[in-house]
Amino acid sequence: MSRPRGVWAVFVVLMLALSMGGMAKAEEKVFKWKLATTWAPTLVPFIDAPKDMVKMVEKMSGGRLLIEIVTSDKHKKPYGVLDMVKDDEYEMGHSAAYYYIKKDVTLAPLTTMPFGMLPYEQYAWFYYGGGMALMQEAYAGYGVLSFPGGSTGNEMGGWFNKEINTLDDLKGLKMRIPGFGGMVMSELGVKVVNMPAVKLAGALKSGKLDALEWVGPGMDIALGFHKIAKYYYSGWHEPASEMQYLVNTAKYNELPEDLREILRVAMKVTAYNMYIRLQHMHGEAWATMKKEYPNIVIKSFPISIMDAMREANNKIIRRISAKNPMFKKIIDSKRSYQETIRAWTKISDFLYLVESL
Amino acid sequence: MSRPRGVWAVFVVLMLALSMGGMAKAEEKVFKWKLATTWAPTLVPFIDAPKDMVKMVEKMSGGRLLIEIVTSDKHKKPYGVLDMVKDDEYEMGHSAAYYYIKKDVTLAPLTTMPFGMLPYEQYAWFYYGGGMALMQEAYAGYGVLSFPGGSTGNEMGGWFNKEINTLDDLKGLKMRIPGFGGMVMSELGVKVVNMPAVKLAGALKSGKLDALEWVGPGMDIALGFHKIAKYYYSGWHEPASEMQYLVNTAKYNELPEDLREILRVAMKVTAYNMYIRLQHMHGEAWATMKKEYPNIVIKSFPISIMDAMREANNKIIRRISAKNPMFKKIIDSKRSYQETIRAWTKISDFLYLVESL
Repeated sequence: MSRPRGVWAVFVVLMLALSMGGMAKAEEKVFKWKLATTWAPTLVPFIDAPKDMVKMVEKMSGGRLLIEIVTSDKHKKPYGVLDMVKDDEYEMGHSAAYYYIKKDVTLAPLTTMPFGMLPYEQYAWFYYGGGMALMQEAYAGYGVLSFPGGSTGNEMGGWFNKEINTLDDLKGLKMRIPGFGGMVMSELGVKVVNMPAVKLAGALKSGKLDALEWVGPGMDIALGFHKIAKYYYSGWHEPASEMQYLVNTAKYNELPEDLREILRVAMKVTAYNMYIRLQHMHGEAWATMKKEYPNIVIKSFPISIMDAMREANNKIIRRISAKNPMFKKIIDSKRSYQETIRAWTKISDFLYLVESL
Repeated sequence: MSRPRGVWAVFVVLMLALSMGGMAKAEEKVFKWKLATTWAPTLVPFIDAPKDMVKMVEKMSGGRLLIEIVTSDKHKKPYGVLDMVKDDEYEMGHSAAYYYIKKDVTLAPLTTMPFGMLPYEQYAWFYYGGGMALMQEAYAGYGVLSFPGGSTGNEMGGWFNKEINTLDDLKGLKMRIPGFGGMVMSELGVKVVNMPAVKLAGALKSGKLDALEWVGPGMDIALGFHKIAKYYYSGWHEPASEMQYLVNTAKYNELPEDLREILRVAMKVTAYNMYIRLQHMHGEAWATMKKEYPNIVIKSFPISIMDAMREANNKIIRRISAKNPMFKKIIDSKRSYQETIRAWTKISDFLYLVESL
């Protein structure tokens, strides 16, 4: 019986090899990642972009890529997200490029610029007008990839306790307005103040602030500014603020191609979704505000002030561009693209809105 | 030696069971589907939405959901896509709801309506304003699911050989304009003509047509209308034409949940992408047209004509609504949503565009 036993043994070894192969497939590698947000868990809808993305990725990957979200109330570094992804403390982040304006001004125009593109125009620039390549170039030194992470839409110019009719009305005005918008306002004599979100409404009420900008009705409503200030100014300084996903490049490269595609697609669709959802929230909130506080007055800055803002903005851009070729490269690309696509916006959506008024 | 042999045999059976389990996992079920398009393979960028979707799905599923695209030049039934998906000749389709206006007028407003929502407004209605549920209700009788499949953006009012200054100028005018736009024009005395795309430019040149609408610069440019007609009118009749994915419900239900999620996400992102890509194409093409044919004149219809169009549109909607409660339900939902979100569009993008002129 020694021969038959030998045959059995060969067969067993064969089966063992086969089943090991099968088991390796069944227990495919699971990637466990962490994502740091600039946001607290309550900051709807910013926080929902990464939350939805993580759920999508888990479902689509059949549980092979699991991403845990760590919000800013936990990691305590809302504006440290870029560095933490760079240093691989977190594989991913959800933040906005212009929060790093003091660290690296090159990144700021990747979010939005005063007098810049509207959301659909900017998405066209990112995906079909060379924007994505420039964004990766700007982040290459950090060893980080950056992807659009959701647009706020066109932000409102802000809540003002008094009307702004002349440039003199801006002199000494105490206003919360960060980033390039704040730099422009500062050039025009505004005293630019920064403070945490939770203190804004109180400061507006007490007169510590004369004006502030936040986002737009959908996010402003929760902070109650419409119960305090009478004038709501139309936007000029952040026409398409785009949040961002950050991914540590080395970690991204470790993923097999199907998981990379799953991650890319989930980031892209949740970015678009956040834009659309926030416009829905703006519409609903604006209807509520108008109904409950019918005395709110919508205003636009007079042409003389808009011209002065535009001039100040150009001056700031020239100053930075002279020292920073990559900043200049991004600005030049955006401006040239905007000229082309805005000509289309003017004969399509704009004329349609004029006619339907 | 009989006992040891028995032990071997048990072991072999165990190994066999294990390896079979492993192999089943390794050779997970592959779904092979077919998707019928209303488009020829050359109709960029409509055709690219399903093409990109299919590639994404294959990559993300690791080859477990393979979808073959069959274009209209092959299946010969460009306007039979809904029926073919209903009858399970194809698991999926890529088409537009308003092509089935004669078969079932209920579906048409799911694409767009004259004086209706702009693309971002309509996406907000679909995804956050109840539109998706109404769309599924409208298609339930067909045993088919419908998902947004990409927007053309705001379509232009069309190319005209002569200026339209009064309602009399429309009487007897021979124009290619299908769907609700055509019904409105017909009410105003226009002789509405239909003909295949390839014949349009010739008819416009020979005077067989006085006017025609197609899409917008990005798709009009290939057909050469800008070389013939002088007047390019701004849009009113199709402000956000949304293509659609159709999926046979029974086939969709056969997919495991991870593949369903992969399919849903890929359809959604390629729809958004098509919208953005076509706006890019519109921008580029409009720049080319203006440069090569500087005599093209952009016009909007005078207010008197717009008012008459609006009235005719309302009359048509009332007539259909009286007989078709589901049509009425969709129209009412869209109109109510539009009122809310348009109020936001007016104080955001619109005022921004006014200021930046």
